[in-house]
Amino acid sequence: MINITHKSPTLRKAIAQAIVKVSKPETILAVKNHGVPKGDVLEMAKTAGLFAAKRTADMIPDCHPLPIEFTAVSYELGEMEIKILVEIHTIYKTGVEVEAMHAASVVALTMYDMLKPLDKGISIEQIKLIEKRGGKSDQKTDFS
Amino acid sequence: MINITHKSPTLRKAIAQAIVKVSKPETILAVKNHGVPKGDVLEMAKTAGLFAAKRTADMIPDCHPLPIEFTAVSYELGEMEIKILVEIHTIYKTGVEVEAMHAASVVALTMYDMLKPLDKGISIEQIKLIEKRGGKSDQKTDFS
Amino acid sequence: MINITHKSPTLRKAIAQAIVKVSKPETILAVKNHGVPKGDVLEMAKTAGLFAAKRTADMIPDCHPLPIEFTAVSYELGEMEIKILVEIHTIYKTGVEVEAMHAASVVALTMYDMLKPLDKGISIEQIKLIEKRGGKSDQKTDFS
Amino acid sequence: MINITHKSPTLRKAIAQAIVKVSKPETILAVKNHGVPKGDVLEMAKTAGLFAAKRTADMIPDCHPLPIEFTAVSYELGEMEIKILVEIHTIYKTGVEVEAMHAASVVALTMYDMLKPLDKGISIEQIKLIEKRGGKSDQKTDFS
Amino acid sequence: MINITHKSPTLRKAIAQAIVKVSKPETILAVKNHGVPKGDVLEMAKTAGLFAAKRTADMIPDCHPLPIEFTAVSYELGEMEIKILVEIHTIYKTGVEVEAMHAASVVALTMYDMLKPLDKGISIEQIKLIEKRGGKSDQKTDFS
Amino acid sequence: MINITHKSPTLRKAIAQAIVKVSKPETILAVKNHGVPKGDVLEMAKTAGLFAAKRTADMIPDCHPLPIEFTAVSYELGEMEIKILVEIHTIYKTGVEVEAMHAASVVALTMYDMLKPLDKGISIEQIKLIEKRGGKSDQKTDFS
Repeated sequence: MINITHKSPTLRKAIAQAIVKVSKPETILAVKNHGVPKGDVLEMAKTAGLFAAKRTADMIPDCHPLPIEFTAVSYELGEMEIKILVEIHTIYKTGVEVEAMHAASVVALTMYDMLKPLDKGISIEQIKLIEKRGGKSDQKTDFS
Repeated sequence: MINITHKSPTLRKAIAQAIVKVSKPETILAVKNHGVPKGDVLEMAKTAGLFAAKRTADMIPDCHPLPIEFTAVSYELGEMEIKILVEIHTIYKTGVEVEAMHAASVVALTMYDMLKPLDKGISIEQIKLIEKRGGKSDQKTDFS
Repeated sequence: MINITHKSPTLRKAIAQAIVKVSKPETILAVKNHGVPKGDVLEMAKTAGLFAAKRTADMIPDCHPLPIEFTAVSYELGEMEIKILVEIHTIYKTGVEVEAMHAASVVALTMYDMLKPLDKGISIEQIKLIEKRGGKSDQKTDFS
Repeated sequence: MINITHKSPTLRKAIAQAIVKVSKPETILAVKNHGVPKGDVLEMAKTAGLFAAKRTADMIPDCHPLPIEFTAVSYELGEMEIKILVEIHTIYKTGVEVEAMHAASVVALTMYDMLKPLDKGISIEQIKLIEKRGGKSDQKTDFS
Repeated sequence: MINITHKSPTLRKAIAQAIVKVSKPETILAVKNHGVPKGDVLEMAKTAGLFAAKRTADMIPDCHPLPIEFTAVSYELGEMEIKILVEIHTIYKTGVEVEAMHAASVVALTMYDMLKPLDKGISIEQIKLIEKRGGKSDQKTDFS
Repeated sequence: MINITHKSPTLRKAIAQAIVKVSKPETILAVKNHGVPKGDVLEMAKTAGLFAAKRTADMIPDCHPLPIEFTAVSYELGEMEIKILVEIHTIYKTGVEVEAMHAASVVALTMYDMLKPLDKGISIEQIKLIEKRGGKSDQKTDFS
């Protein structure tokens, strides 16, 4: 685990995404219309993501434990996919990009778990960092 | 959470994959040549995956806790990607596909975390079930 | 921790309750109308309860780890209170009453946490076992 | 999860209570006289409460992880009830009232679990905040 | 993780020890006389050990999750040391020796943590398996 | 749990050791030559130790949660033993000696678990603090 004792805490932000690809439009409709037997997919997956953001250092060996000070989970529903966006902020010595990607992946896996009785052809795609701000290597500068 | 009290335990197997896409061949070479400063990527990621398989019910709301009785993590290294394969077996009343996908995603996230100092263009792709055996809806029959 | 190696697994069920008492009717209305800024109270609290049921042995020293095979969270909304009911089933050597009470308490605490910006006078009352079936000391016999 | 990046850390204190109601005086006597087969109820429940205080953010979705810097568990034993008091301090940007209530509830549940072989009529009552100091809305001012 | 799907569950027992060595007799006297400021050392350490037994698979990569069906923690107090004995039983396909050793080590570490304000010269010695019964390689046969 | 709200954060360092004693030289050779069926012992045990360092407050009742800002695991292989050294740094109000000892013990237990199919005579010895720096009672002063 990298030594960060000498670093100064600054405001760090990260946005990560994951995409849940379904095999038929009815799956997305079931999500929208609250027609999934296991419950409200968007709310339950968001809740699982809030927990996952906080437990990243428990799952990834080299991640430093850090104070998660803001987490937001949002969705963009397409005809055949759901895009998950997770934004995390901290004031600490290291960034939160892995935290955001971990949370996005758990949101996606929760959807997979809830939707698999309805759709056997779901996959999770493009878990990646979208924006990062606050360390030495900002990927984008407009994070207002 | 679905009621499984009436189901009979049978041998269940699942294989899931995740793909770590890098942006330059040097990243894969660093993995192969043990040249990553944070440590041995393949061994550390495998270890994180063993833990993740066992903690799936802790991360995904509707997953039943179940006895993970075998987990194997293997890799296929290409020029620009690493394919992660996780195989899990249980003898229980419900399958282990989400467990295998969860473990594969944590293996991939551990790689991302270890490799991001070397490569800013990594994404995780195609987390999906490859094979499943033992429930009512086998996807493939040859799981020898 | 009591020795249960000699006991036989049987179907065990428990229902526990917790009551969230608010100080004004507007609090309950905000829950019903999805007007709570932190999110959908009933769905998020239910999700937290599903996790809590599975983590009871992690929180209570003498609780045996056991296979939670069914969990349901339901609500009865009154004018000034929300009654939470958690039902859990297992097939194991010991009962799930503490699991049900633990899950009910975490559902209630999640509501408290989400509602405290709106209502400073909330308390949690009457966490107790409502029904239990399957061990030597059934409290009620009609658990259909 | 609410954004607290802009807030300043200050000393925050909270005291919460939970009440364990028993159905006969012999139950309280067994606690006092170390006559409970599962062990020393007051010490074991206190230990469970210390852990629970630290794991609140793991159980409640919107709770921020924060540095618990002091936890004390104390008891008032009546003839037919045990009042549990949990006091927690932190220096952080948000308060510890949910942490104190969560710890008090786990102390109470541990007692329930240890005492249920002796008393089938136990319930947990009045989990609530008693005092809070350090945020914008102190409930009491005398927290010396 | 070794494949145990083909194995049959049998009664498995293990006893492990750990020894806490202190640097002066007053340390042991403080334990006996309840004179340690942090609390009752023997009860709190036992409680930590009960939790640790159940969380072994969470800490050790290749340990299978298994149903802990009995745990007992006992002590032998000498003039300059405390011997900790942890006995665990399960009915499962693999043994509980690592679980017993893990619990014994956490009991010892809890003592270390509670006693270090009183004694700067404490070490933990001889964490080892004392007895094992139920698998193919019993170390002792008299486990009555 | 001791009140540390009034203390100032300073750089704290601790090094702890644990010794894994084997019963035959072949066991050490198998570790060196990557001949252990369960996997790469040194890498897997190190990974388990990184997680354990971060989870100390989850296992030891009175340990404060704190920001682990550096962890290093190193080994000295003898003919009949492996010495494990864990160094941890934080900037906080309390030290990390229990964290270092806890991590060292989990590294040792992981080795025990991986090596027990090869060697039935392994024990863990001398878990103790080697160096500590940054609090009021430095044990050694040269921690450069």
